[in-house]
Amino acid sequence: MEKKASFAMNMNSPDKQESVCVFGTGDFGRSLGNKMLQCGYSVVFGSRNPGQSQSRLYHKEIEVLSHAEAAQRSDIIIIAIHRDHYKFLTELAEQLQGKILVDISNNLKINQYPESNAAYLAELIPGAKVVKAFNTISAWALQSGNLDGSRQVFVCGDDKESKQQVMNISRTLGFTPLDHGSLKAAREIENYPLQLFPMWKFPLCITGILFIFYFIYFLLRSIIYPYVHHREDRTFIFAFSVPNHVFSAMAITLLGLVYLPGIFAAILQLYRGTKYSSFPNWLNQWMLCRKQLGLLALAFAFLHVLYAFAISIRYNSKWRLSDKLIKQVKSNKTDPFSKSDNWYTDSFITLGILGFFLFILLGITSLPSVSNMVNWREFRFVQSKLGYLTLTLCTAHVFVVSGNKFVKPPPLIWHLPPLNVISLIIPFVVLILKLILVMPVFDRPLTRIRQGWERNSVSKKEIQLETGNTRCDGANNQFAMSFPSNRLE
Amino acid sequence: MEKKASFAMNMNSPDKQESVCVFGTGDFGRSLGNKMLQCGYSVVFGSRNPGQSQSRLYHKEIEVLSHAEAAQRSDIIIIAIHRDHYKFLTELAEQLQGKILVDISNNLKINQYPESNAAYLAELIPGAKVVKAFNTISAWALQSGNLDGSRQVFVCGDDKESKQQVMNISRTLGFTPLDHGSLKAAREIENYPLQLFPMWKFPLCITGILFIFYFIYFLLRSIIYPYVHHREDRTFIFAFSVPNHVFSAMAITLLGLVYLPGIFAAILQLYRGTKYSSFPNWLNQWMLCRKQLGLLALAFAFLHVLYAFAISIRYNSKWRLSDKLIKQVKSNKTDPFSKSDNWYTDSFITLGILGFFLFILLGITSLPSVSNMVNWREFRFVQSKLGYLTLTLCTAHVFVVSGNKFVKPPPLIWHLPPLNVISLIIPFVVLILKLILVMPVFDRPLTRIRQGWERNSVSKKEIQLETGNTRCDGANNQFAMSFPSNRLE
Amino acid sequence: MEKKASFAMNMNSPDKQESVCVFGTGDFGRSLGNKMLQCGYSVVFGSRNPGQSQSRLYHKEIEVLSHAEAAQRSDIIIIAIHRDHYKFLTELAEQLQGKILVDISNNLKINQYPESNAAYLAELIPGAKVVKAFNTISAWALQSGNLDGSRQVFVCGDDKESKQQVMNISRTLGFTPLDHGSLKAAREIENYPLQLFPMWKFPLCITGILFIFYFIYFLLRSIIYPYVHHREDRTFIFAFSVPNHVFSAMAITLLGLVYLPGIFAAILQLYRGTKYSSFPNWLNQWMLCRKQLGLLALAFAFLHVLYAFAISIRYNSKWRLSDKLIKQVKSNKTDPFSKSDNWYTDSFITLGILGFFLFILLGITSLPSVSNMVNWREFRFVQSKLGYLTLTLCTAHVFVVSGNKFVKPPPLIWHLPPLNVISLIIPFVVLILKLILVMPVFDRPLTRIRQGWERNSVSKKEIQLETGNTRCDGANNQFAMSFPSNRLE
Repeated sequence: MEKKASFAMNMNSPDKQESVCVFGTGDFGRSLGNKMLQCGYSVVFGSRNPGQSQSRLYHKEIEVLSHAEAAQRSDIIIIAIHRDHYKFLTELAEQLQGKILVDISNNLKINQYPESNAAYLAELIPGAKVVKAFNTISAWALQSGNLDGSRQVFVCGDDKESKQQVMNISRTLGFTPLDHGSLKAAREIENYPLQLFPMWKFPLCITGILFIFYFIYFLLRSIIYPYVHHREDRTFIFAFSVPNHVFSAMAITLLGLVYLPGIFAAILQLYRGTKYSSFPNWLNQWMLCRKQLGLLALAFAFLHVLYAFAISIRYNSKWRLSDKLIKQVKSNKTDPFSKSDNWYTDSFITLGILGFFLFILLGITSLPSVSNMVNWREFRFVQSKLGYLTLTLCTAHVFVVSGNKFVKPPPLIWHLPPLNVISLIIPFVVLILKLILVMPVFDRPLTRIRQGWERNSVSKKEIQLETGNTRCDGANNQFAMSFPSNRLE
Repeated sequence: MEKKASFAMNMNSPDKQESVCVFGTGDFGRSLGNKMLQCGYSVVFGSRNPGQSQSRLYHKEIEVLSHAEAAQRSDIIIIAIHRDHYKFLTELAEQLQGKILVDISNNLKINQYPESNAAYLAELIPGAKVVKAFNTISAWALQSGNLDGSRQVFVCGDDKESKQQVMNISRTLGFTPLDHGSLKAAREIENYPLQLFPMWKFPLCITGILFIFYFIYFLLRSIIYPYVHHREDRTFIFAFSVPNHVFSAMAITLLGLVYLPGIFAAILQLYRGTKYSSFPNWLNQWMLCRKQLGLLALAFAFLHVLYAFAISIRYNSKWRLSDKLIKQVKSNKTDPFSKSDNWYTDSFITLGILGFFLFILLGITSLPSVSNMVNWREFRFVQSKLGYLTLTLCTAHVFVVSGNKFVKPPPLIWHLPPLNVISLIIPFVVLILKLILVMPVFDRPLTRIRQGWERNSVSKKEIQLETGNTRCDGANNQFAMSFPSNRLE
Repeated sequence: MEKKASFAMNMNSPDKQESVCVFGTGDFGRSLGNKMLQCGYSVVFGSRNPGQSQSRLYHKEIEVLSHAEAAQRSDIIIIAIHRDHYKFLTELAEQLQGKILVDISNNLKINQYPESNAAYLAELIPGAKVVKAFNTISAWALQSGNLDGSRQVFVCGDDKESKQQVMNISRTLGFTPLDHGSLKAAREIENYPLQLFPMWKFPLCITGILFIFYFIYFLLRSIIYPYVHHREDRTFIFAFSVPNHVFSAMAITLLGLVYLPGIFAAILQLYRGTKYSSFPNWLNQWMLCRKQLGLLALAFAFLHVLYAFAISIRYNSKWRLSDKLIKQVKSNKTDPFSKSDNWYTDSFITLGILGFFLFILLGITSLPSVSNMVNWREFRFVQSKLGYLTLTLCTAHVFVVSGNKFVKPPPLIWHLPPLNVISLIIPFVVLILKLILVMPVFDRPLTRIRQGWERNSVSKKEIQLETGNTRCDGANNQFAMSFPSNRLE
């Protein structure tokens, strides 16, 4: 509160104060104007009805003029009005000549209009320099000074210098401007705030389908089959065993799916003998969502771990332990300590713990602020080496857990193997193919291909002029979880 | 070590090297001077006793001159001396005319002097352009090159150009300058390094009071009552059951308190028919600390989860299991498997696990580097939709755990219901009110109000000139945990 | 896909477009050229064989000229060719006169050549202004627009203005340029992408040695001794008890090692009576890796917690519980509830949970994005106060767990005390010394020393001119985990 007051009087900076004009006294216009005022700009508002608008401003001392008058006060005009009302700006075409018009508008739907709002504005006032900016910032963030949401301001425009000026303003306001090229990019920038996790759509889709499949599969084998064949009601496992088994199967399968596209890419590169032809579209898309798949796998693994630790709190576990004991007592026969049973549980617990630990490490290095700290070599090391180690440990964990099912396979229920076994298929395929690919006979040509070598190259000379191998290695590392979250670029 | 040496000789950049003067050869002055030297500036020190000071510098080749001589070497003078000694600068008023004086000082107490140090400096040397900067940076960070602490340099000053120059320097040194307007802001900037989590004071206060209340409440019912009425010593539950119950009650209550102010705000907006009148102060404050409350709730939930998982390691659990068994054996009566008991434990475990999982997700999206990656729509989705789902799951978890206490209420002990029941009051209130508010009859006008509509508006025309609804929605979303941690803005 | 296309046509920005020339059409050259094109630069390639190279570009409309022709088009030339081929540039010396040459090359090994590539380039073309930049960015990051890896571009060069221009370009491309001074720094910058966690080497070394020692120690006592003396095969504890005990011992010892160097530093400062003489090298190194040691300790603590929670799932635990029960039943003797046993397990569980909770808090504040949000006072509070509280709680936890071993020491096995006892030595030493150091008789002079006071000072006058104590306190706080991860500075 007091803070605001102190800023409010900062206007009286003595000299060379830049002035900015804001058209429109709506929520966002006022908030932006107020923020600029605080940061030392001289601000004037343009309104159809200056007198009335004046009363709605946060700082009563700001001038509100007619649009035409306000436009003359500054070279930069923020257009804080709806696209529907842009038309009236044509009346001011003369006053807006040569001015920088900052389009900050958003739409209600993706690709709502044939052209972007900014392009439409540029069409209406051909003599002005239109810059798209600030549309990702919320009025509330500006009002509360709470800039902890995204600070990125995407800027685009055809005039480089105007763009630079707008970027300077946004920097002064405490934002991080990102240049997105010419006004053509405005469409994308306008769509950005309407997106809902676009990078997550595909992985979430895969996850959803897989989840439903595994869920039904497990129900079939564990609840429906006993009921159909033995009239046994096993629904009581629904609240614990079903999620626990399905979640663990999801985790290991998704982790396998993170590393599978890298294997495919390597095989394709080996087959084609070059890294310069692009991958088929499905593979590209898959590779770009490896980070998301990995994080989803981690989420399921985390849930599975929580379930595992909760096992002994269950009524079921306690009852089974009691039941077994009472039977022993009644039969007057004591089970001796079985070292092999001990080895069995201890080893799958240890494999699970170590696998989960490394998985968490991978997740932490996915945090933007952590991954920003490491160089490519380190990132590759973590994501590739540690990633495969995680996959190996987790696969081994599931394998040992379902161990005896491999040793002496249980009778297939309706010809269906247990869910554990199903979930191991993809991880096994990945690990076996990877094992083949690291053999020198495949690894050596692959490395060379990734350094730029081409099997049927005619332009060897030119290729040798490429830069360092280190970087190329990193750049083409198909095995790493990738980090494609900055969607606009 | 070697690194330093290599930087030390970087001075010999051929041309157009900017020069900076530093008054004072104390710890910070030397560190800053040294850092600037490394980044290519030509640095000269001003000292009362040049010869002696020379010997204390890190790089012996730097010149140390008298204050008057040093001042003439550069347009920018860093004043690295105590405020108490500013007086002597008046002797140099002539040499300092028109120079940029950078005040980097801090105080020992918040609001120690009537005016900020920078304002005092500006008063003493009216002809100079005073800029406040660098006071949040530590000498040790500069010396060790360890810039992992805050890189933010808050800058303010009345002269825009000088401010820009100082911001450029700080950018070159690897910091992130943030413009805070005119010199009036210096007071705040000087107070900043003396603050100790100001945003956390209010939430910690609430938490503390609530904790003491719940703690005593639980003690009364579970330890003191049995002792008073039955002379039963139940202090042995002190080290486990007490924290476990109190922590879980804290978690669910605090989570309710996160969403309660949003409900109040919605009701107020509906009642007033506008979003343009500001909320009462207590509500504003409450809304601004929702993030902190949410994180505190998460901390307690995390502790509760740790306790829950440790239950089966306890001597108490093992003994009770044994005791029950031995009784069964002795009475030669075996408890049959109870499906309802199994459903009961399994369902509250599952509710707890899923609730905790979503809670962790909310916590992760609160990390500054993650929240910086999402747009408003995504942020709102996570914090509002996921937030309410978390609250619902966690409330259901506690409700089921204390289930039979609702079905057949235990005798009130001293007229007090169990702690679990008490802790559910606020979450229940929130969920019921929310359920009412999402009914179309309330939701529709509320949405319109948040888009700028006013029930008794005379200036409809002007209002329609506001920008996109999408953003307004996001901006005014009262249900989200907010993220107000950057305190200075 | 479509995105790319839209950017591809952004070239037609009307006026004042900056042009950049790229020598070399290798992977990185093309990716960088393409990115610059997208961001509005006019790009031209220089190649030995323009016709052939043209076919390999992403955007066929980009011009590829001979090196000489291309050089004339722009003042900035990106040298995207191998160091081995730099020689041929001497032929173009005339055309390159006065141009800014951006060296982006990397090597295959650290310190591969006697001088840095950039220095070599500057030698070859004395008339050009060489700037080192972009070598930490990968071609893949540029191609995929996936800038989530490190965005830091380290820049160095002798000409300040050229450096500024290159920094502007990298800012426009969406990177964060960091000025590293003169061209002398190029060596370091070139080594940077070849480093593999250099800050972790020393702590990992210590951890490795300690781990091996503890591992063998535990094996000796718990597996080898029983076998040698009693022919008892206890290898079955290998998969669970061994890691659990060794991990917990590692965690507590490493946590002690985090705070030990701070104690040494304080003693040294007290003894010397000044903070201005530098610490011995080993102590400096140790202090700089406290953050890493702390995170390693946290990793081990996390593993230990996972093991602890998994205890009750083990076959071993269940069997022992059964065994004990059956014995009770058979002997017809029931163990009464032991309050002291309950206190014992409950209290070490609670100590462990609270200690682990605080430890996690410490870990979270180590995340770069979180630590960037707090000021020095807050950081110091968390890392020092909370740090010592964590150490105290964790030490108490281990102490209570191994409690009876202290009360009535078990017979030393081969004169070796239990691992728990060994692992407590360092934490105990730290806590006792700290307790001594906070006594006023030591704390008062230490505080004064850290504020700049010197016991045998001759230059008191000058010292008093130092800046605020608050910062000095923070800066010299030897007890905090430090955060030295930005290695290049």
